Amino acid sequence: MTAPLRRRALGELVGTAALVAVVVGSGIQATELTDDVALQLLANSLATVFGLGVLITLLGPLSGAHFNPAVTLAAWWTGRRGEDGPDLRDVAAYVAAQVAGGVSGTILANAMFGEPLARLSTHDRSAGHLWLGEVVATAGLVLLALGLARTGQQRLGPLVVASYIGAAYWFTSSTSFANPAVTIARSFSDSFAGIAPASVPPFVASQFLGAAVGVFLLAALFGRLPAPKDRARVSTGEHELTATGR
Amino acid sequence: MTAPLRRRALGELVGTAALVAVVVGSGIQATELTDDVALQLLANSLATVFGLGVLITLLGPLSGAHFNPAVTLAAWWTGRRGEDGPDLRDVAAYVAAQVAGGVSGTILANAMFGEPLARLSTHDRSAGHLWLGEVVATAGLVLLALGLARTGQQRLGPLVVASYIGAAYWFTSSTSFANPAVTIARSFSDSFAGIAPASVPPFVASQFLGAAVGVFLLAALFGRLPAPKDRARVSTGEHELTATGR
Amino acid sequence: MTAPLRRRALGELVGTAALVAVVVGSGIQATELTDDVALQLLANSLATVFGLGVLITLLGPLSGAHFNPAVTLAAWWTGRRGEDGPDLRDVAAYVAAQVAGGVSGTILANAMFGEPLARLSTHDRSAGHLWLGEVVATAGLVLLALGLARTGQQRLGPLVVASYIGAAYWFTSSTSFANPAVTIARSFSDSFAGIAPASVPPFVASQFLGAAVGVFLLAALFGRLPAPKDRARVSTGEHELTATGR
Amino acid sequence: MTAPLRRRALGELVGTAALVAVVVGSGIQATELTDDVALQLLANSLATVFGLGVLITLLGPLSGAHFNPAVTLAAWWTGRRGEDGPDLRDVAAYVAAQVAGGVSGTILANAMFGEPLARLSTHDRSAGHLWLGEVVATAGLVLLALGLARTGQQRLGPLVVASYIGAAYWFTSSTSFANPAVTIARSFSDSFAGIAPASVPPFVASQFLGAAVGVFLLAALFGRLPAPKDRARVSTGEHELTATGR
Repeated sequence: MTAPLRRRALGELVGTAALVAVVVGSGIQATELTDDVALQLLANSLATVFGLGVLITLLGPLSGAHFNPAVTLAAWWTGRRGEDGPDLRDVAAYVAAQVAGGVSGTILANAMFGEPLARLSTHDRSAGHLWLGEVVATAGLVLLALGLARTGQQRLGPLVVASYIGAAYWFTSSTSFANPAVTIARSFSDSFAGIAPASVPPFVASQFLGAAVGVFLLAALFGRLPAPKDRARVSTGEHELTATGR
Repeated sequence: MTAPLRRRALGELVGTAALVAVVVGSGIQATELTDDVALQLLANSLATVFGLGVLITLLGPLSGAHFNPAVTLAAWWTGRRGEDGPDLRDVAAYVAAQVAGGVSGTILANAMFGEPLARLSTHDRSAGHLWLGEVVATAGLVLLALGLARTGQQRLGPLVVASYIGAAYWFTSSTSFANPAVTIARSFSDSFAGIAPASVPPFVASQFLGAAVGVFLLAALFGRLPAPKDRARVSTGEHELTATGR
Repeated sequence: MTAPLRRRALGELVGTAALVAVVVGSGIQATELTDDVALQLLANSLATVFGLGVLITLLGPLSGAHFNPAVTLAAWWTGRRGEDGPDLRDVAAYVAAQVAGGVSGTILANAMFGEPLARLSTHDRSAGHLWLGEVVATAGLVLLALGLARTGQQRLGPLVVASYIGAAYWFTSSTSFANPAVTIARSFSDSFAGIAPASVPPFVASQFLGAAVGVFLLAALFGRLPAPKDRARVSTGEHELTATGR
Repeated sequence: MTAPLRRRALGELVGTAALVAVVVGSGIQATELTDDVALQLLANSLATVFGLGVLITLLGPLSGAHFNPAVTLAAWWTGRRGEDGPDLRDVAAYVAAQVAGGVSGTILANAMFGEPLARLSTHDRSAGHLWLGEVVATAGLVLLALGLARTGQQRLGPLVVASYIGAAYWFTSSTSFANPAVTIARSFSDSFAGIAPASVPPFVASQFLGAAVGVFLLAALFGRLPAPKDRARVSTGEHELTATGR
């Protein structure tokens, strides 16, 4: 009983909005309460771990809980020769919902904290080592999302994907945006979690490059994909999505 | 083997008392130990995550572990046309137990820290953006509690509901009271977690509004409710409650 | 295939030693690294949550992972009329092992940090509100340990008992010793986690009083104990212990 | 369907690289953001808990997720008389992959933070009480990894091993390197997580001594090993590895 695309896209929109509201909102809260930047990032990262795990649990059965164009594209790419995985119509609807949801989430967070609803960030994040951070962060995320499916552990997605982001906030220099929709959304908040619009394009490019690296690592570690029929479904949510004949 | 209402209401009383003792007590402890408000909120939120998860695990099988009039009312509303869900007699007993338990929890926390047993809070929390925070926090909580049941994931309630609160402490401007009984109870402690009595009514109104938003989002995302007989039971605790013919 | 008492007692000794080493060691580490007492307690409490969960997982199948005379006595009391639960010979061996293990743990922690192997604590913890904290902390622990068994959720013991202690560190004024063996052991370290010998007897008395309160709450919430044969086994470890005919 | 040794060794290389990147990278991030050393260690330890749990989940089914020569050797030693466990050819390939992976991880972390790709650490860590810390940390890790298998709880490996490291960061004076490959790798970063090359040999010797202590404790607690055929497989990953006839 797969939900219709309209409803699945709504799931991606609501989920991405909530994810961005958590990231941006907790960043504002933290900077209002302390001057210690490590403590700000600790609060920001723990709130994201908690929130992301909840969102994947709740919405995974509905839409797959991608909340991320890089994951949606990787799921399409690795599933494109079989009956599994999203088709291009799904991809278009998902990506549009993710971007619209992300921006809505920024607006909601700004509103909750009495900030202007949308204001372009002045937080410059342009540097080669930050782009490398995004490549690494997104490669890891995509490898993990696809790898959980390959090892039959999709049900651990909420816990493991959230934990991954919790680590990636800290071990990557860029604090792991790892998500083009969220990156665009965060350019509309001039706060702790913001990113200046000029810094967005290379971040997004790095993220897509990272997704490709993740797909490559998946094949290097776990071998060629089995025949489409036998293949496990993409984790972090392809759950219901892939069971459908669209 | 559902417990009689008297015993289930006792579960709600003890559980809400313990929840409030955790929230208020850890707030007092934190403010005694540091001046960094972010660190205070971090300790307060992590203690609540740990404590709430424990309480839902222990008391969910007994009473459903609502600890929250907004959740109890939402469970009644969504289950009112079927045999599932609490009836109005349950609702009355639960809400009374939650409020009495909450106030008892404040008194216990104050006693443990050598404070006056009850003293009205002077912590003003009146502002439009805080009320929006409460609407969002409660909408998310109700959507989650009902959504776990709709997706057959009630057993994850302790982990997921506790995680949600851990995120909501940070991403909402109001630090997510999201609970009318707990809000009333917190007005009796003049400490970190307190709320001035004059700030209580709009908080509670925002919470009930948020609960309605949560019920609406549930239908928008997961569709109309199935026929009563087939319906999954409300999470975060309707477990035993709904299996009974009272 | 229950282990012989000798080996189960060794499990209690090693487990209690490790638990105390975690509590005392992380306390020393934290005070060496920061002057912020809330941060010290945060590190101390999180290390204990992680360590206790690990120890219950590893040693629960062997000894029941009590590590605590109050829990052992409560298990004996509630199981004394049936074939389940420890008998008095078990209790004597367990308590002796717990106290000996606890003191060994303090010595190990002191050695790891280059401190004198044993030095009586000067940390006075004598006050009525602290004793109330111990009553509450131990009542909650015993209610939880026995309640998990009553609700058939023993397998969640490692996660839930560890989480409980994580909350209790913060919401009780005494930071939740809640364990007579650990209390005695902590009197031998003059550090963050220490307790002056003169403060030990009222703490231990409060803990046993709390255990009685926990047993009372268990009956009030979950009703009379079912007949011995049908009864679920005590959580946090009675697992193998109670299956045996000693 | 066990993977060929080449691919399993690649899993160890990638996993150890990622683990070291997390440890070193989060250490650099933390020191860039705050001067409070306890907060630095808190961020460092939580990032490691999250990252290690993820890596064991993803790569356990492939290689066993040792990422650690001490664990690989202990698995070989305890399994050497049966058909289970790695043989010496596996051990050689694993250890080489772990060391190469570890150093790669340091280089990657340095690159992500715009540091020189490799620079010898000046962080002296030579003292008897630190060596005792390493003995204790590694004994506990090996006891845990082998003990989970002996008690049939291998599936809990990701959660429990990661939690153990989270505790060991704090309760051991050495912050628990507990891993010869990671120790060598960390000598190539002059940052928070670094270790001066002169301090490496006694750390590694202490770790192997600790592994022996862990194997001894395993036998003392859980008794002689059952006959090879009946034996449970080593946790933290022997999963697929031991099922194979190489």
